[in-house]
Amino acid sequence: MGSELVRRYAAALGARDWDGFGTLLADDVVYRLPQTGEVVRGREAFVRLNREFPRAWELTVLDAYGDERGGVLHGDYGIDEPEYGITVLRFRDGRVAEIVDYWPEPYGAPADRRHLTDREGP
Amino acid sequence: MGSELVRRYAAALGARDWDGFGTLLADDVVYRLPQTGEVVRGREAFVRLNREFPRAWELTVLDAYGDERGGVLHGDYGIDEPEYGITVLRFRDGRVAEIVDYWPEPYGAPADRRHLTDREGP
Repeated sequence: MGSELVRRYAAALGARDWDGFGTLLADDVVYRLPQTGEVVRGREAFVRLNREFPRAWELTVLDAYGDERGGVLHGDYGIDEPEYGITVLRFRDGRVAEIVDYWPEPYGAPADRRHLTDREGP
Repeated sequence: MGSELVRRYAAALGARDWDGFGTLLADDVVYRLPQTGEVVRGREAFVRLNREFPRAWELTVLDAYGDERGGVLHGDYGIDEPEYGITVLRFRDGRVAEIVDYWPEPYGAPADRRHLTDREGP
């Protein structure tokens, strides 16, 4: 399941173990959401962002890979239907120093490739 | 940069080396786009989907991780502005047997976390 630090990150997040989660983060961790342009700076603000997240979620780890430089967590955070999140982690001195997070939303299938595709899912 | 097979996948794709790209894929490779529900089955259809992609793109590898089971490629495919793609690969017998692909689109920053966030980017 990828590097030890990716696994520990996912385990602490999934368990809402916010103290343990915080110990995995660099003091000056930077969290980026390219889809909105939002940036959260520092361990305290980033732990709070997660702790105070206003909608229900449970983490199911789908894929996790990494090495000493960083890793990627592919998770499903949905309760009644899938809600996929992909989290890119970059490490420094054994802690998570940068996070790039993606929350892909559904969109309509392009018509110009119908000849190559099937459909599945809800 | 992650496992050898993730690197070879990215290199062949980025170079539009469609013959080389095809040799990395299982005959019955399955490609899934959870955002649209589309599924593409088989090497020939999947190579064609890539070869015939109707818009301009160039691949810049941002992060790549993997092991003998699979891996993840985080790339920027944009020309004039970033266009991020995250590709989860799952291997079988040394080839890519399943692909789960995400193309996260921009969305508005939620108002309820403005107290925790800065903004950056275009």
